[in-house]
Amino acid sequence: MPLQQENLFVKKPVYKGEPMKKIGIIGFGRIGKVHAKSIQKFVKGAVVKSICDPLLDEEKIMFANELGIMNCYKDYHDILMDNEIDAVLICSSTNTHALISIEAAQAKKHIFCEKPIDTEVSRIQAVMQAVEENDVKFQVGFNRRFDHNFKALRNAVIEKTIGTPHFISIVSRDPDAPSIEYVKVSGGMFLDMTIHDFDMARFLSDSEVTEVYAVGDALVNPEIKAAGDIDSAQITLRFANGAIGSINNSRKATYGYDQRAEVFGSKGSIQSQNDTLNTSIFSDENGITHQKPLFFFLERYMQSFTDEMNEFIIAVENNTPTPVSVYDGLVPVIIAKAALLSLKENRPVKISEISDLVKI
Amino acid sequence: MPLQQENLFVKKPVYKGEPMKKIGIIGFGRIGKVHAKSIQKFVKGAVVKSICDPLLDEEKIMFANELGIMNCYKDYHDILMDNEIDAVLICSSTNTHALISIEAAQAKKHIFCEKPIDTEVSRIQAVMQAVEENDVKFQVGFNRRFDHNFKALRNAVIEKTIGTPHFISIVSRDPDAPSIEYVKVSGGMFLDMTIHDFDMARFLSDSEVTEVYAVGDALVNPEIKAAGDIDSAQITLRFANGAIGSINNSRKATYGYDQRAEVFGSKGSIQSQNDTLNTSIFSDENGITHQKPLFFFLERYMQSFTDEMNEFIIAVENNTPTPVSVYDGLVPVIIAKAALLSLKENRPVKISEISDLVKI
Amino acid sequence: MPLQQENLFVKKPVYKGEPMKKIGIIGFGRIGKVHAKSIQKFVKGAVVKSICDPLLDEEKIMFANELGIMNCYKDYHDILMDNEIDAVLICSSTNTHALISIEAAQAKKHIFCEKPIDTEVSRIQAVMQAVEENDVKFQVGFNRRFDHNFKALRNAVIEKTIGTPHFISIVSRDPDAPSIEYVKVSGGMFLDMTIHDFDMARFLSDSEVTEVYAVGDALVNPEIKAAGDIDSAQITLRFANGAIGSINNSRKATYGYDQRAEVFGSKGSIQSQNDTLNTSIFSDENGITHQKPLFFFLERYMQSFTDEMNEFIIAVENNTPTPVSVYDGLVPVIIAKAALLSLKENRPVKISEISDLVKI
Amino acid sequence: MPLQQENLFVKKPVYKGEPMKKIGIIGFGRIGKVHAKSIQKFVKGAVVKSICDPLLDEEKIMFANELGIMNCYKDYHDILMDNEIDAVLICSSTNTHALISIEAAQAKKHIFCEKPIDTEVSRIQAVMQAVEENDVKFQVGFNRRFDHNFKALRNAVIEKTIGTPHFISIVSRDPDAPSIEYVKVSGGMFLDMTIHDFDMARFLSDSEVTEVYAVGDALVNPEIKAAGDIDSAQITLRFANGAIGSINNSRKATYGYDQRAEVFGSKGSIQSQNDTLNTSIFSDENGITHQKPLFFFLERYMQSFTDEMNEFIIAVENNTPTPVSVYDGLVPVIIAKAALLSLKENRPVKISEISDLVKI
Repeated sequence: MPLQQENLFVKKPVYKGEPMKKIGIIGFGRIGKVHAKSIQKFVKGAVVKSICDPLLDEEKIMFANELGIMNCYKDYHDILMDNEIDAVLICSSTNTHALISIEAAQAKKHIFCEKPIDTEVSRIQAVMQAVEENDVKFQVGFNRRFDHNFKALRNAVIEKTIGTPHFISIVSRDPDAPSIEYVKVSGGMFLDMTIHDFDMARFLSDSEVTEVYAVGDALVNPEIKAAGDIDSAQITLRFANGAIGSINNSRKATYGYDQRAEVFGSKGSIQSQNDTLNTSIFSDENGITHQKPLFFFLERYMQSFTDEMNEFIIAVENNTPTPVSVYDGLVPVIIAKAALLSLKENRPVKISEISDLVKI
Repeated sequence: MPLQQENLFVKKPVYKGEPMKKIGIIGFGRIGKVHAKSIQKFVKGAVVKSICDPLLDEEKIMFANELGIMNCYKDYHDILMDNEIDAVLICSSTNTHALISIEAAQAKKHIFCEKPIDTEVSRIQAVMQAVEENDVKFQVGFNRRFDHNFKALRNAVIEKTIGTPHFISIVSRDPDAPSIEYVKVSGGMFLDMTIHDFDMARFLSDSEVTEVYAVGDALVNPEIKAAGDIDSAQITLRFANGAIGSINNSRKATYGYDQRAEVFGSKGSIQSQNDTLNTSIFSDENGITHQKPLFFFLERYMQSFTDEMNEFIIAVENNTPTPVSVYDGLVPVIIAKAALLSLKENRPVKISEISDLVKI
Repeated sequence: MPLQQENLFVKKPVYKGEPMKKIGIIGFGRIGKVHAKSIQKFVKGAVVKSICDPLLDEEKIMFANELGIMNCYKDYHDILMDNEIDAVLICSSTNTHALISIEAAQAKKHIFCEKPIDTEVSRIQAVMQAVEENDVKFQVGFNRRFDHNFKALRNAVIEKTIGTPHFISIVSRDPDAPSIEYVKVSGGMFLDMTIHDFDMARFLSDSEVTEVYAVGDALVNPEIKAAGDIDSAQITLRFANGAIGSINNSRKATYGYDQRAEVFGSKGSIQSQNDTLNTSIFSDENGITHQKPLFFFLERYMQSFTDEMNEFIIAVENNTPTPVSVYDGLVPVIIAKAALLSLKENRPVKISEISDLVKI
Repeated sequence: MPLQQENLFVKKPVYKGEPMKKIGIIGFGRIGKVHAKSIQKFVKGAVVKSICDPLLDEEKIMFANELGIMNCYKDYHDILMDNEIDAVLICSSTNTHALISIEAAQAKKHIFCEKPIDTEVSRIQAVMQAVEENDVKFQVGFNRRFDHNFKALRNAVIEKTIGTPHFISIVSRDPDAPSIEYVKVSGGMFLDMTIHDFDMARFLSDSEVTEVYAVGDALVNPEIKAAGDIDSAQITLRFANGAIGSINNSRKATYGYDQRAEVFGSKGSIQSQNDTLNTSIFSDENGITHQKPLFFFLERYMQSFTDEMNEFIIAVENNTPTPVSVYDGLVPVIIAKAALLSLKENRPVKISEISDLVKI
C-alpha cells in the first residue's frame, strides 16, 4: 500500500509556520516509540523534546537519540516541570494513566492519553474534572477512528448513504493470543482488546450503547481461563437509535489480524475488508491465493497513529475540541464493565446499571 | 452460473433402471410447483403422477398438465388412497403438515415434508411416532444443506480443515419484507425464516444448540411490530461442543438475498459468499460494480431443491436413511421456540427449558 | 453454482406442446454424449431417437440405452434415411463435418454441426450452398456465445453501456496440454482451440476482424513444436469498427481452465471472471485461498451446451434463423488461417488475403 | 491504505548518523515538487538544499520555503557550482536531461534523472560515458520498480514461484488524456507513457525484449491523431528468454488509473490488482460497488517515489550500484523506438534494428 496523497498534499487545516509544539512522551515502551517515530517523521506541527520511562535503559536512550530526542528521564515530573513542553503523551501502564493525566492537567500540559484512561469510572471522572478545571486539551488514543476503512463506513452513516442503520457488525481478531503473563495484567480481554471495538461501535453507529449481552470462553487457550480471562467472545449491543450491534472477538486468527466491519441500513450496506501488503494473487494447482491481512496493529493501523496525532496537534494549535474526548474515553470503559457483568451473570446488562454518565 | 457437471455425469449412487418412483404432491402453491418441475426435469428416479390442492383451479391444472401430470385433485386423500403412489410431497400450509404426514405414514407412503413440520413439539413427536410405526421414509425440506456453498463449509468442519470450530456466523437476509397478511399467518420470523438458519447452525457446527439469546425489532417496517412480529434480529447461540454462534437476520436487504456464513476455528476460517448471475464487473466513473446476489431463494437455492429430492428418492429406492430426518425437523422448531422466549423475556434461554428431546 | 431460475421458469419463447423434434446424433464420442444427455435431460422440445458412430461398441450402446435411445447404428446413412428424424447433430471428426452436412441437407435434415465446420474455406462454402438450396436450418457449435458471463459482456457492448469499444481482450487457457497424438490430428491450436476465441472476438466486438498478428511457441511442451504445432500464443486483432483485440492462449494453466474477457470502451469497461464450484474462501497461515476455476469446458460451459441446443430447437420449431449460422462458422476458420499465416511469416496478415468472403 | 510498517521500522540498511546528503533539484514542476516533499518528509539520509527552475516564480519559492528549502535559483549552474551539493535530481524537461546530466557528472554530482533520459540513443550513450568517466552514481526514475505490487510479481519470477515465465501481460491506462498541447511536446505516447511499461516488461520478465509489434490508434480523442500521436495501443513483445509479452495502453479509463500486471508461468500465475483508497464495499439496489483505483500516479505510486529516493541515497552513501542504471534508462528508449517504427510500418521490429546496445 502506497502512502496516501493526503500525506504529501495535505487537505486538512494546514500548519501555518508557527513554532512547533514541543511534546514529552511519558512511558517509552512499544506504543511510546511508535508515537515518537510517527511525530518525528510525519507530524508537521510538533516535535518530541523529551521522553521518560521508569525503566529507562541504553536501548531506549539510543532509540530516542536516533530520532533527535536528547532529553531522556526516568521521572515524568521532569517533563511536567519543563515549561517548554506544550503537551504530553501518556503511554505508561494503564494504572498510571489517571494519576499522570491529573498531574499533567495541573501542570497545564495538553494531554494525549493511550486507552483505556483507567479501569475505574470514578478515576476517569477525576481526570475529566482536572482537564476541565485546567482548560487543557485531552485526547484518547482510539486510533482506529482515523483508519481509512472505518472512516469510509462512518461517512456512509453520517451522510445517510446507507439510510437508517439497522446493524453494526464488527469482527476483530488478533493474530495470536498474548502470553499468560500479559493476560494477567491486561485488565481482561474486554478492557484490553474489545475496548477498541466498543469505541468503534459508538463511532460507526453514531449513537450510544444502551445494553450489552456477552458470551465468551477460552477456546484458544484454556490457560487463559485458568487466569480468569477469556479469549473468544460474541457480544450483542443495543443502541439508543434502535440499531443492533454485534462484536466478534478472537485472540487468535491463524491467518492474521482480522479487522472488518459492516453497517447495514434501510438503504444499503457498507462493509470494510482487511488491508494487505500488496494486491498480488497467486494461482496454482492449490487454489487462487490472496494476501493475508497486514500482520498486526502496527502494520494495519500505522497511518491512523500518525493521523490521530496530527489531529491532536491541530486541536492544540487552534484551540478547537479534540476529536476523541475524555468522555469518549469514559464510555467504552463503562460498556466493557457492563460486558464483564453480562459475562459473569449470563444476562443482558443495561449500561445504566453500571453508570448514569452516558448521555442518551 | 452453469449447470454443474455432476448434474450430467452424476457421481451419486446411480439409478439402475427400476421403474420410477411415483410421486404425489399435496399442496400446489409456489413450492409445490418448484418440486414438480424439478422432479419432472431433473430427478431421474421419480415421476410425479398426481397433484392436489384444496384451491385447485385452471391455472394449477394447466401447470401440471404441461409437466405431463394428468391427475389433479382437490382432496389429498385421493393421493393417499392411490396404491401406485410411492411417496408424497407435503407442500401444503404449515398447520396441515403434521396431520397429513401422519395419515400418509398410515397409508404407507414415504414422505417429503416442507419445513417446518409443525410449530408444536408434541405434534412433531406424533409424526415421528407414525413414521416409525409405519416404517416409511421421512425427509424435511431443509434444502440449504444441499447448497454447494454451505456444503463446502460443512465439509471443512467435518474434515477438520479449520480445526476445532470456535464460531459459526450466519448472515441471512431477504430481499424484501413479506406482506403484513403473510406476516400474520407466518408463525413469526423465527419459525418462518430463521428456522433455516437454526438448521444451518446445527449443520455447520456438527453439534447441538444448548442456549439461545435473541434480540430483535421491526426496523424495516413498524407495521410488522404492530402485527406482533419482528423483521430484524441478532441471535447468539451456544453449542454443546463449546462453539459460539451468531445469526443475523433482516427481512429487507436492498441489494438482494444475502446468504453468507463463516466457520472460524483453531486452524483457520472458511466463509462463503453470495452467488451471482454472472461474474461480470463493470467499471466506470461511479466505481467498480459487481453483480448483486441472486434475487431470492428460487434462484439462489434452485440446485439444492433438485438435489434434496434426488437424495430423498435414493433413500426410498435403497431403503437407506434420508439425509434430513424428522428429528432434524424437530430440533430447529425447539430452537425457534427458545429464541421466541428469549426475545419475549430478554434473557438467554436454555434449549432444555423448551424440551428435553434434544440429544446432547 | 445453482441451476439458474431461467432453467425452471423459462423466459424464452416457450414450447407449446407440439410433438418433440426427433434428433439423430452422428458421432458418439465425448461431445456427442454431452449433447445426448443434455437433450434428454434439459431440452424440452426435442428427443434423441438415434445415434451412430463408426466405432460403435457395447459401451456406447449402453450409454445411449440408459438415456432411452434405442437406435444405435454404425453408418450415419441409417439416420439420414430415417424419415422421422427432423434434425441431426454432427459430432464426428472434423474432416467429415462438411460431407455429412451436405448429405444431411440433401436429406432435408436440419443440422447442428460442431466446430469447426471444416478447415477449408471452399468446403464450408459448399456446405453453405447445400444448406441454402435445401432450405434447412444450420447451427455451429460455438457454445460460448450462450455462456452467462460472455453474454453479460456482449450485452454491455450492444446496449452501449461501455460506450464505443476500444479493446477486446480474451484470456483463454486450458488446464493441461493434450496428448501429442491429439495434437497431430487436431488441425493445430488455432483451428482446434483458438477458433472459439476468434468467434468470441467477433461476438464481443459486434464487428469483423480485418487483420491478425500472431506470435506463438511451444512453451509448455517442446514435443508439441516437434509435432509442428504451438501451445502458447499472443494474438493481436484489428476490427472493422476500429477496436483492437488481444487473445492470450496457453494449453496449460496449472490452476485450471482460465476463461476471462474484457471489453474496454469510451464510457467504461466490463470484464468477466472465472466460474468456480462454490464461493468458499479458506483462510489460514498460508493465505486467503479462493476456489480454482471450474476444471474444463464440460464443467465451465455445461449450461451453454444446453442453451445452444434449446435455441437450435426453437429455430427449427419456429422457422426462425439459428443464432450461429454457417457464415458464423466460416469466419473464424478464415481468421485462424490468417493467424497461421501470420505465425509462419511473422507479419500482420489481412483477412482479405485469405478470403473475400468476410463482409465488412 | 496505511503507511507500511517498513516506513517506521525500516528493514533496509539503516542510515547510521552521517551528515545528510545535500540535494539540489533541477526543474521544479510537478515531479520536482513531489521529490522535494518526499525527501523532506520521508528520506532519512538526505535533505534538499537548493532548487532551481528557469521559470522560477513566487509560488515555486513559497513551496520550497515551506519545506525549509531556502536556496532557489533560475540557473542550474548555481546548483552544479555549489560544493556542498552531493547529488542532483534532474526533473527538467526531457530535452535537457542529457545535457544537464553530463554537466552534473563533470561537476562530480551524483545524479537522479527522471525518465526518459533522452529520446536519442546517442545522447544517452554520451551520458553513460560521462557518468563512467566521472565515477558518479546515476539512477533513472523508473519508480514503478519500487511499487509494492510489482515487486511482489518480480519476486515470484526471481524466486521461480511461477516456474518459467511464459507471458508478461501489462495493463496500463491513464484516467484521462492529456491536453493536445502536452501531447505535442510529450515525445509521443510510447516515449512518454509506455516507457514505464517497457521498463516494467524488462523488470517482470527478468529478460530483454528482442522484438516488438505495436498497433495503436487515437480512439479516445481524434485530435491526438491530428497531432501525430496515438492514445490507445496493444503491443506484443518477444523476450530473450522465450517469454511473450503484451502491453495494453489507453490514455483514458473512465474509472481511473488502471495499473495491473500478470506473469504467467509453467508452475502458476501471479497477478496484481489496483490499489484503492480504502477497502469499503457499498451494496444497494444498483449493485455491489467497490472503490475505484487510486486516481493517478501521484496517489498510486507515492510510496515508490519515496522508496526509489531512499535507495538512491543508500547507493550514494555506501558507494553501491544504484538499482536503476543508465543502461536501464537506455533500453526502454530503444524499445520505444522499435515500437514507433513498428507502428509506422505495421510490422514486427527487432530491437537489433534500432541499436546493438542491448545485451542479450
